[in-house]
Amino acid sequence: MNKEQLIEQIKKKKSFLCVGLDPDLEKLPEHLLDLEDPITAFNKDIIEATSDLCVAYKPNIAFFECYGERGWKSLRQTWELLPKDVLSIADAKRGDIGNTAARYAKAFFDTEISGLGFDAITVAPYMGKDSVQPFTAFDGKWAVVLGLTSNQGSEDFQMLSVEASGPLYQEVLRKVKSWASTDNLMFVVGATKGEYIQDVRAVVPDHFLLVPGVGAQGGSLIDVCNYGMNKDCGLLVNSTRGIIYASNGRDFADRARDKALELQREMEEQLYQHKII
Amino acid sequence: MNKEQLIEQIKKKKSFLCVGLDPDLEKLPEHLLDLEDPITAFNKDIIEATSDLCVAYKPNIAFFECYGERGWKSLRQTWELLPKDVLSIADAKRGDIGNTAARYAKAFFDTEISGLGFDAITVAPYMGKDSVQPFTAFDGKWAVVLGLTSNQGSEDFQMLSVEASGPLYQEVLRKVKSWASTDNLMFVVGATKGEYIQDVRAVVPDHFLLVPGVGAQGGSLIDVCNYGMNKDCGLLVNSTRGIIYASNGRDFADRARDKALELQREMEEQLYQHKII
Repeated sequence: MNKEQLIEQIKKKKSFLCVGLDPDLEKLPEHLLDLEDPITAFNKDIIEATSDLCVAYKPNIAFFECYGERGWKSLRQTWELLPKDVLSIADAKRGDIGNTAARYAKAFFDTEISGLGFDAITVAPYMGKDSVQPFTAFDGKWAVVLGLTSNQGSEDFQMLSVEASGPLYQEVLRKVKSWASTDNLMFVVGATKGEYIQDVRAVVPDHFLLVPGVGAQGGSLIDVCNYGMNKDCGLLVNSTRGIIYASNGRDFADRARDKALELQREMEEQLYQHKII
Repeated sequence: MNKEQLIEQIKKKKSFLCVGLDPDLEKLPEHLLDLEDPITAFNKDIIEATSDLCVAYKPNIAFFECYGERGWKSLRQTWELLPKDVLSIADAKRGDIGNTAARYAKAFFDTEISGLGFDAITVAPYMGKDSVQPFTAFDGKWAVVLGLTSNQGSEDFQMLSVEASGPLYQEVLRKVKSWASTDNLMFVVGATKGEYIQDVRAVVPDHFLLVPGVGAQGGSLIDVCNYGMNKDCGLLVNSTRGIIYASNGRDFADRARDKALELQREMEEQLYQHKII
């Protein structure tokens, strides 16, 4: 899915919601646990209940990978269930040198080889340019590079002052944006640091930002929009636990839909206020 | 495998060689390609030909993952082939927040859940403390954190000057070493930057360093030893292509052994010179 298609979907669905898929066997509704593949069954119902309300899904690869090859099978089956008009983001945080990064790109982008064909993957920047470009070099695919994350540990390195350039995360934004275009590069920016989104926009005014941390992690959607929305919307706001674990009963899909609908309506309001729709 | 056992193996085998396993179908000997699982067959022969000469194996996860669930099956089968007296390092470069990092730890450490039980995993530091500790918190397992890597892109961020602390990678070493002990934490330090290993040792004198980049990537083993060896040896020096792709004929395992033996002898010489054995 390219940038124009993504913007079109945002306007059509009046939503910039990304639904995180972190399927945790300990949190899944009990009645699913006897199935052969509870994870795929859970994701299927969540996807069916929310796909008209969101523009992206973000499976968190660790939640599949922890079950080894069986988990990777569930990941493939989940990817196959994702509607084609929704941006699919592999939240994998991969990051390695060129040769190896190219293999990770194949793992998530090249359906013929791996069985997976995600639109985008999250990427760690520590190893620099040759660890990011193999992803953006993949035709029609996106790299979503970690800029400023929303966890406590983000202060350990991301907030360090780099001589003459301010915090490291800003230098990451500045350099990485020169390696690819707004058509195949996004940044992860944590919503729990709403006040920093303005600083992020000063460096990358035009890129899409993938914003985790609204809802369960405490970020404010309104702050994110006021500081971060640009003329194309330029935001994908993720919610995971607040949606997929809204209930752990038989009604989990309906309750997930309720929560997604709630967020979609707040987003619709923001899109109107910022004159995107 | 704990630190004492690792040091014992180094002294016993007179080697601190780590053999990288990057099984690439395009480089595998042709006669293996008709087998059901050429990757596992290749790894099996390489392991049998080299296991008395090295103290660690380092499968590069991307080379398995790019084949999806099938690749993960090969990874499990390869892990099962690794002798138990050799340190097994999953070169995965994972790095995500606590909750998710704990899942990645299970993926590579918790045999009951994932089928894999590596001794160690490589970890990216960008997201900070809560992205590293779930790995070191795993009883008896190691996190191998990226310090200074050997690729060109290492200059993009790792060499940036952080105010009052020198280059970022040194600040990474300094902070990360305070989060765990020398018993469960190593650092990746690229050998192509031999002159920096002295600077690394000034910050982390006692930790084991995993050093890629000797051989095909141009690093000098003697430099690495002169600058990096400590009283416990403190080094695992990796070689991948120089060993596993020494030949792509039917003699690949014999030629891999020749190359591993060559390195082992150089290492033995260094261990004598530095009075480790």
